[in-house]
Amino acid sequence: MILYIIRHAIAVEAAEFGGEDSQRPLTGKGKKKMQSIAQGLKELEIQLDLILTSPYLRAAQTAGILAKKFKLSEDQVVTTDHLAPTGYPDQLIEEINEKYGEAEHIAVIGHEPTLSSLASMLITGDPNTSIILKKGGVCRLSIENLEYGRCGSLEWLLSPAQLARIAE
Amino acid sequence: MILYIIRHAIAVEAAEFGGEDSQRPLTGKGKKKMQSIAQGLKELEIQLDLILTSPYLRAAQTAGILAKKFKLSEDQVVTTDHLAPTGYPDQLIEEINEKYGEAEHIAVIGHEPTLSSLASMLITGDPNTSIILKKGGVCRLSIENLEYGRCGSLEWLLSPAQLARIAE
Repeated sequence: MILYIIRHAIAVEAAEFGGEDSQRPLTGKGKKKMQSIAQGLKELEIQLDLILTSPYLRAAQTAGILAKKFKLSEDQVVTTDHLAPTGYPDQLIEEINEKYGEAEHIAVIGHEPTLSSLASMLITGDPNTSIILKKGGVCRLSIENLEYGRCGSLEWLLSPAQLARIAE
Repeated sequence: MILYIIRHAIAVEAAEFGGEDSQRPLTGKGKKKMQSIAQGLKELEIQLDLILTSPYLRAAQTAGILAKKFKLSEDQVVTTDHLAPTGYPDQLIEEINEKYGEAEHIAVIGHEPTLSSLASMLITGDPNTSIILKKGGVCRLSIENLEYGRCGSLEWLLSPAQLARIAE
């Protein structure tokens, strides 16, 4: 299995936004940048069978931009509370194994610090190592048998600027 | 300190090469690819103050291509046995701290599995995690206080193909 761990793109700042945190949208610039990032992933000729996303608007919008670029159908984009800031990555892994074990190329879209901690856990068995995942950043793991423990290799980790550069 | 960990580019296969392993050169294709990789790093606007390289020909040639692209002087490219396949990465770190503590942007060029093990050690404190460093692959670590232990963050890890793509 190939797992892409993707942090949501640039959203309106919490201080500027009056509403609930779960409803903070991407900025116009954030959407545009995410389109470039998705194009960059397209240029790298990656495949995607399934996107799992946090229900928070900024993540769901990020997932929408990616899904459109990869021409995924509606049922290939799934929302899960385990990717919300309040979710638990071990339960996310359980959900993937229970429901989506057949998918070979999965992207998960959510929030920090959960995502870099998840990447760290799968690569090292320790959730606390230091991997920098910027907004719109992507890392790719190849995984033998998915579990919440050391089970994968880090193939690459690209910043949003690098992905946008590849899209040019 | 910013540390770039770079694996030598594609060399003539050991089976095809009659001489000593330390004298195996880059292939023509390997040299060309490395020029693209160096150009990709240039496009990312990175800085380099110092290159430390394994004395093995394939690494020294890789260092030469990178040094030329970044217009480094001869004394900014240093050979060290600690980066040879028989070297010890803890001694490499000691050498950097003793002799090159002033350098802010250092590249080390050498061999697998030593290099990915070194990256792993600096990010996690464990030399045995799974980071894939292809020939000509580059990772960038930001480091607070360099030591042979957990002291840095992984900012990015790019494959040679991705760097060549950025150079296009």
